[in-house]
Amino acid sequence: MSRPFISFLTDFGPDSAAAICRGVMLSIAPNANIVDISHSVKKYAIRDGAYLLTLAVPWFPVGVHVAVVDPGVGTARRPIGIKTRRGDVLIGPDNGLLVAVAEALGGIDEARVLENREWMLEVTSSTFHGRDIFSPMAANLAIGGKFKKVGPAVDPATLVTLESPAAVARDGGLDSTLLYVDSFGNLRLAGAPADLASAAGGLEPGNRFVVEFGQSGDRGPQSELAPWARTFGEIEFGKPLLYEDSFGHLAYADNQGNVAARLGVGAGTLVRIRPA
Amino acid sequence: MSRPFISFLTDFGPDSAAAICRGVMLSIAPNANIVDISHSVKKYAIRDGAYLLTLAVPWFPVGVHVAVVDPGVGTARRPIGIKTRRGDVLIGPDNGLLVAVAEALGGIDEARVLENREWMLEVTSSTFHGRDIFSPMAANLAIGGKFKKVGPAVDPATLVTLESPAAVARDGGLDSTLLYVDSFGNLRLAGAPADLASAAGGLEPGNRFVVEFGQSGDRGPQSELAPWARTFGEIEFGKPLLYEDSFGHLAYADNQGNVAARLGVGAGTLVRIRPA
Amino acid sequence: MSRPFISFLTDFGPDSAAAICRGVMLSIAPNANIVDISHSVKKYAIRDGAYLLTLAVPWFPVGVHVAVVDPGVGTARRPIGIKTRRGDVLIGPDNGLLVAVAEALGGIDEARVLENREWMLEVTSSTFHGRDIFSPMAANLAIGGKFKKVGPAVDPATLVTLESPAAVARDGGLDSTLLYVDSFGNLRLAGAPADLASAAGGLEPGNRFVVEFGQSGDRGPQSELAPWARTFGEIEFGKPLLYEDSFGHLAYADNQGNVAARLGVGAGTLVRIRPA
Repeated sequence: MSRPFISFLTDFGPDSAAAICRGVMLSIAPNANIVDISHSVKKYAIRDGAYLLTLAVPWFPVGVHVAVVDPGVGTARRPIGIKTRRGDVLIGPDNGLLVAVAEALGGIDEARVLENREWMLEVTSSTFHGRDIFSPMAANLAIGGKFKKVGPAVDPATLVTLESPAAVARDGGLDSTLLYVDSFGNLRLAGAPADLASAAGGLEPGNRFVVEFGQSGDRGPQSELAPWARTFGEIEFGKPLLYEDSFGHLAYADNQGNVAARLGVGAGTLVRIRPA
Repeated sequence: MSRPFISFLTDFGPDSAAAICRGVMLSIAPNANIVDISHSVKKYAIRDGAYLLTLAVPWFPVGVHVAVVDPGVGTARRPIGIKTRRGDVLIGPDNGLLVAVAEALGGIDEARVLENREWMLEVTSSTFHGRDIFSPMAANLAIGGKFKKVGPAVDPATLVTLESPAAVARDGGLDSTLLYVDSFGNLRLAGAPADLASAAGGLEPGNRFVVEFGQSGDRGPQSELAPWARTFGEIEFGKPLLYEDSFGHLAYADNQGNVAARLGVGAGTLVRIRPA
Repeated sequence: MSRPFISFLTDFGPDSAAAICRGVMLSIAPNANIVDISHSVKKYAIRDGAYLLTLAVPWFPVGVHVAVVDPGVGTARRPIGIKTRRGDVLIGPDNGLLVAVAEALGGIDEARVLENREWMLEVTSSTFHGRDIFSPMAANLAIGGKFKKVGPAVDPATLVTLESPAAVARDGGLDSTLLYVDSFGNLRLAGAPADLASAAGGLEPGNRFVVEFGQSGDRGPQSELAPWARTFGEIEFGKPLLYEDSFGHLAYADNQGNVAARLGVGAGTLVRIRPA
C-alpha cells in the first residue's frame, strides 16, 4: 500500500513550469510521491540530463520517471515510454535522454510511443509537452494504468541514442572525456579506475599523473600534475586530485575549489591521463 | 480522504525561510501536501509573482495557495485571504499579488483581513509574516478551518490591484508589453494570437513580422524580423520566432537561445509587432 | 500515526545528489515526510550551514535532521548522531555543523558515532557519505530504530564546535560580527537588540547609528549612518536600516536593496555600531 513513486527531471529552471507539471500529476494521482531530481539541468543539454538521470534513478524505488530536456518539443521527435527490466517506466522525448538510464535499470523491456489521447490533457500545446503529455501519462501509470495503454510498441532499436564517449588506453595513458561538471566544479570523466590502472599502472594513493585537458580550445591544451587520492581531504587545500567518484567513475577535482572554473573546461573536453 | 493541498510561492530564495514556513505549516497540518511553485521570484517583484501564480494555480487541485512577495511587510498593508469561486483560498499580502490569480480561478467570492490571533504564531515579527501569519493561517484552513474565521470581511473592491498592460491594435500592428521573462529567456507578451491576427492579419507559419522593442531605453529601440511559428524546432538554431505560448498568449523566443539576454530587455518593455 | 519527519540541508547544489539521498531515504522509509531546508548552502561553508540549521530546525516538528556540509568527507572526521533534549536526532559530520542547532533544541542528550554497518549502504564510498551513511542512518531512525543502535556513545565534550562570535559592548558602542548574508543581501549580525540597547542607548525608531564595517579589507573600513527601524517599509526606498530580524537578532539591510553587494561584505566582517 505504499505511495506510487514518480521522479522528475527537467531543464525548466526556477519558474513555475515544474510546479505546474506536479500539479497536473497530483490532480490525477493525488497520492503520488513525486521526487524532483533536478530542474536546473543546463537548458537544452540532453546529454547533461541523461548523465544526471543515469546516476540518480538506480537509487530510487521502482517507479515512473519523467524527464524533459526537449529542444525539439512539438516537432517530429516522438514522445516515448520505456519499460525497463527493473520494472520502471521512463517517460519523455525520444531524443537520447532516456536510453542510457534504461540500460542502468537492467535494459529496455519494451518501448512505446505516447499516443493515448485519454492520458493527455484535453488540449495539448506545441511547446509544453511536459505538462500536456508527459505528466498525465506518468500519473496515469502511477495509479496503476497498464503500460501497453500509452500507445503502440516501437522497436527499441529505433530509439534515438547518444554516442557515449569511452575511455581508451593509448601509449601508456588513458584517453578520456569530460562527461559532466557537477555543481562543485568537479569533473566527472569517462572510464573507471580499473581502466586507468590497466592503461597507466597502479593507483596507489600518492601516485602522480599528468592530466592534459583539451586539444586546441580557447586556452589551448592545458596540462598539470595531480596525485591519485582516495578523498578530497587527503590533499592540500586548493590542490587537484584524481579520484574514484562515488559512482565508480574517474573524476578530477580541486580540494575545496572549483577546478572547472579554474581550467575553463566543460563537458566534451578531451582529458588525457598518463603517469608522471 | 485525500490530503489537503497547499501551494506556496515566494521571493525568499535559497535560504531556509521557505522551509521554515513549510515546517510551521506541517506542525499544524501534518498531512498537507505542500507544493512549491517557486521561491525564486525576483526579489520584491510583485508583478512577476502575480504572473507566475496566475499561470500556475489553475493547474492545481482546489486548495489553499500561499504567496509572499511582500516588500511592505510590517507596514500598514493588509494581510488578506481571498475565497475564489472555484473554491480555493488565497493567502498573502494585499499588494496586488493575489487579485489576478483570483480572477483566473473564477473570480473573488469573498475577501477577509487576516486578524485571528489564534491562527497566527504566538509572537509575530515585523519582517516575516510568511512564517508568523500566512503559514499558520493557511495550515488552519487546510485542516478544515472555516474561511470566515480568518478575520473580518472586506469589500473586494478595496483590494490593491496591479494595472495589467493590454495589447492594443494600432495602425495595422499590435502594441504589446513584455510581461515576464522566463528562465529560458523567452519573452511572455501581453495579448493573444487572436489579437495579433485581428490587428495585423494572418498568422500562418512563416508569415514574417517586424518586432520592435522599447522606446528609448539604454540601447534605444531595437527592431528585428521574425516569422510566426508553431514551435521552436521549426526555426533555425539561434534564430527568433513569434509564437503562441503554452498558456495561449503571445511570446517571442530564440530557438535554443536566450533572447532576453541578447536584447537586454526586461518586464515592462514595450513591444510593437507589425507585418513585415 | 503521523508520518516520520526528516529535514535535510546540504551544500550539494542543483545536481542530483540531494535527490539521490532522498531516494535512499524513501527506499528505507517510504512514508517519511522529507523537508529540504536548503541545498544551496555555500560550498564547504560549515558555518553558513550551522547558521541556517540553527534558525530553521526549531520551527520543525520533532524528527530526524540530516545536514551535510562536509569538506572532510572520507577523512578521520567522525560521522555522528546527536540526540537532543527536545527529542530530535541530528545526523551529519562531526565538524561543528550540528552542535549549535543541538543547543537550540534544548541541548545535547547523547552523542554517538555512526558505526552500525547494517544501517549504511552495503558499499560506502569515500566521497558521498550523505548517500551511503547519513541518509540510511536517518531513514532507519525515522522508521523507529533506536538511537543507541547507530553506534557507540561518545562524550559530547569531544564534539567539534565552532567558535561563535559574540557581540561585545565597548566605548559606548557594540562590536558585532556579520554572521550570514541572506539571499536578499541582508546582514545577519551577532547579538540581540538588547545588547545594542544596553551598549549604546535607546532603540526608538528613528534613532540614528554609525555602522562601521570591516577593519582593513579590500575596500578598507566603511562607515555609514542608519536609523533603527521596526521594518523595511518605514525607510526610504534603497536606504539602509538597523533592525531586529525575525529571529530576535540584530540585522542590517537596504530597503528593497542588496546591502551586502553594495558594501562588498561577507560573513566574518566585523561590524561596529555606535550612536550617531
